Amino acid sequence: MDSAEFRRHGYALVEWIADYLADAERYPVLPRVEPGDVRRALPAEAPEQGELFETIIADFDRVLVPALTHWNHPGFFGYFAITASAPGVLAEFLAAALNQQAMLWRTSPAATELEEVSLGWLRSLMGLPDAFEGVIYDTASISTLHALAAAREAAVPGVRELGLAGRPDVGALRVYCSEHAHSSVDKAVILLGLGHHALRKIPADDQFRMQATALGEAIKADRAAGILPLAVVATVGTTSTTSIDPVRETADICRREGLWLHVDAAYAGVTAMVPEYRSRFDGWEEADSIVVNPHKWLFTPFDLSAFYCRRMDVVRQAFSLVPDYLATAEGARGVRNLMDTGIQLGRRFRSLKLWMVLRHFGAEGIRAAIVEHIRLAQLFGRWIDEDSRFERMAPTPFSVVCFRASPEPGLTDAELDVFNERLLDAVNATGEVFLSHTRLNGAFVLRLAIGHLRTTEQHVGRAWELLKEHLDGARVRGARVR
Amino acid sequence: MDSAEFRRHGYALVEWIADYLADAERYPVLPRVEPGDVRRALPAEAPEQGELFETIIADFDRVLVPALTHWNHPGFFGYFAITASAPGVLAEFLAAALNQQAMLWRTSPAATELEEVSLGWLRSLMGLPDAFEGVIYDTASISTLHALAAAREAAVPGVRELGLAGRPDVGALRVYCSEHAHSSVDKAVILLGLGHHALRKIPADDQFRMQATALGEAIKADRAAGILPLAVVATVGTTSTTSIDPVRETADICRREGLWLHVDAAYAGVTAMVPEYRSRFDGWEEADSIVVNPHKWLFTPFDLSAFYCRRMDVVRQAFSLVPDYLATAEGARGVRNLMDTGIQLGRRFRSLKLWMVLRHFGAEGIRAAIVEHIRLAQLFGRWIDEDSRFERMAPTPFSVVCFRASPEPGLTDAELDVFNERLLDAVNATGEVFLSHTRLNGAFVLRLAIGHLRTTEQHVGRAWELLKEHLDGARVRGARVR
Repeated sequence: MDSAEFRRHGYALVEWIADYLADAERYPVLPRVEPGDVRRALPAEAPEQGELFETIIADFDRVLVPALTHWNHPGFFGYFAITASAPGVLAEFLAAALNQQAMLWRTSPAATELEEVSLGWLRSLMGLPDAFEGVIYDTASISTLHALAAAREAAVPGVRELGLAGRPDVGALRVYCSEHAHSSVDKAVILLGLGHHALRKIPADDQFRMQATALGEAIKADRAAGILPLAVVATVGTTSTTSIDPVRETADICRREGLWLHVDAAYAGVTAMVPEYRSRFDGWEEADSIVVNPHKWLFTPFDLSAFYCRRMDVVRQAFSLVPDYLATAEGARGVRNLMDTGIQLGRRFRSLKLWMVLRHFGAEGIRAAIVEHIRLAQLFGRWIDEDSRFERMAPTPFSVVCFRASPEPGLTDAELDVFNERLLDAVNATGEVFLSHTRLNGAFVLRLAIGHLRTTEQHVGRAWELLKEHLDGARVRGARVR
Repeated sequence: MDSAEFRRHGYALVEWIADYLADAERYPVLPRVEPGDVRRALPAEAPEQGELFETIIADFDRVLVPALTHWNHPGFFGYFAITASAPGVLAEFLAAALNQQAMLWRTSPAATELEEVSLGWLRSLMGLPDAFEGVIYDTASISTLHALAAAREAAVPGVRELGLAGRPDVGALRVYCSEHAHSSVDKAVILLGLGHHALRKIPADDQFRMQATALGEAIKADRAAGILPLAVVATVGTTSTTSIDPVRETADICRREGLWLHVDAAYAGVTAMVPEYRSRFDGWEEADSIVVNPHKWLFTPFDLSAFYCRRMDVVRQAFSLVPDYLATAEGARGVRNLMDTGIQLGRRFRSLKLWMVLRHFGAEGIRAAIVEHIRLAQLFGRWIDEDSRFERMAPTPFSVVCFRASPEPGLTDAELDVFNERLLDAVNATGEVFLSHTRLNGAFVLRLAIGHLRTTEQHVGRAWELLKEHLDGARVRGARVR
């Protein structure tokens, strides 16, 4: 593709994307396709001859666009709502062209140092001390994996060289987290060879927060049973309800017990930028490591997970390994090479989008957007509370509301579950909004998550109208469960 | 940023990128900056107020561009040379805007199914059977990690639940690879809790190929010592020399011994698309898993690693874990959810660029580019062979030439190392080309790696001239080692 062609196609994409970012509302949030539709619409083999870019884009429009889930739709209220903001998208365009591979300082001084600078900015905005060194990974799954790998490195002598198997000197190990912690903790424990049973899930209180007393007792009981505790994962903003574990108390326990404390603030971490929410993070400055995902609530296109660690030397001790073909004079002089802080050798120029997003919005702009999202969630929560046909199922500390319909008294739990599942499907089928669900104490619960930059009170209001309409419709039609 | 602004900035970036892709030669390949230059040129704190995008781009031009290593320069001959091709860059632009998070089919039917389709196309082009199911990860490090995690899952009963520690029923474990295998194998073994000692590096022959006989003997000796062999990693295209391990013989050993065979073809795999090179992969169709990186030699912007596995059920068994908030009706019906095949929950829409690249170039176009790169490397190798002041240090099966200068007879090994290190630095300091190095049998060796789409015979010829000039210059100036 020559320059003239690139310009032509590039301009066309700028137009397409400008419209898309401004008005994804033209599409249903969830696509109306069935499994296999995309596969069946495409040839089974790659073309032998090259094709015109126009032809490829025509197929993109015809086959792929109708099969997109529109994370960019302001009515996207599922999981955690995210935004590919315009400066972030432009940064990714540039990053793709630059094709930096930032394994070594030498292979991209710009990407290596901008990562340090932009993570320093974010750290400072969140009020964390400089003692936290940062590195960018792709996902929180990988950040938490590195945290627990470092905890293992710190606690099990010689684990890098000798591993865990066949060692009479290494007994059973234990990692602790709340029963509401993210599944990435489970996966990390499995991957690290600790085994899923090594993860002890601490019961939560009635507000879905890990019980510090139960944590302390579990550690004591494990020690008494000859099990070696390694680490605790505390979450600020759990996935189901965004509940906040007692970080300060957990940090005290970890210090007393000599355990690695990892704080999973993948979703909520950025709210520490807002003074009135800072107190929710009380104690996280005592953590050994923290994960915050700018691709969640900092308007940065997926993927970019920020990992902050007080003991990055332990991460390096676990993973640094310099083959001959990657030895450099700078590395020998102690200049930081990003490959030393992780399992992945190759690294994209992810910091570019974080840097551009932070500058474009400024700290003020980001705080204002976060505060507005939380306001909208509180508003929706009040609507729920004030309508007797609905009930709030969890506190709403941030921008996610957990609730369910309870259309008439006397329904069994099973009936409520089925009713709410149908209600969710009906509302989502409108295409105007998309809400996801979870289960709390066994009950099927709807979640409305706010996080897209273009979501306004009107969109949240529309979600509420649709919920009421479909609830009424279900009652009028007698389509009740029993 | 409103639509009009996005258009304006988008157009400006299209112009910038069009020029950059066409003419990165205006820049020195390696930037002329010192460690800390970028950091010092940027403020220590994020701005409180948002800034104009023009201002941000001006800083990009002023501070970051001079600190880029130009992987897009046709004189980039380091590591493995790669290309962010125009259709790949445009696809990434689109992917960033769409911001798909393809953890579930529901969260992006398009990304989920296009991944299957595009990996199917590539599989077929490389002549691999349909029994290999594909999944896209970010890097070969992560692909190989999953391969060895699956091998561990298959060989160690109950490892997912029980782990490796404190189990009298699990003794020492072993993974095998050539002494020339990539460092990602080492890192995976460490991460998985097997311990670095669990990796047994099999000696290579004089062409840097793993010795199958030595592999067979090592397995036998380990079994006799009560060690449980898990897996063998064979490489087609090692990182230092692109040597080819004997895959067929390794596959035979693995079948006989019941070991997982993982083939690392991250760099060279795509050459299996070319009929005359297919035989170099003989036996890989017997592997349990294979990694091929389109971001290396398939003109796809970084990152995109293709992992093919005959036993993806084992990967799922190791990692599938569906929390309540991610349960879907489709998932319950058996529709594939990409989160089940890996450690990372979140996944970008990476298949879009692979699909666009395969269609834009067509199989013919890709084969032609690969064949030309190999031709250029062979040509450069002949120049080396025909000049008595240089020597080839390894065979050149693909597009990487390993060589060194040997400017006069009688130099010691140490003198040759220092001379070649200085020669490399001098040639790289011209900014016209960038070559990297490795060590072979202890000797410092220069590597010329060809893989950029715009690299022509002229660029390779220029590298050759520079090497000769600087060698002569060094001799004339008496700047010899002794």
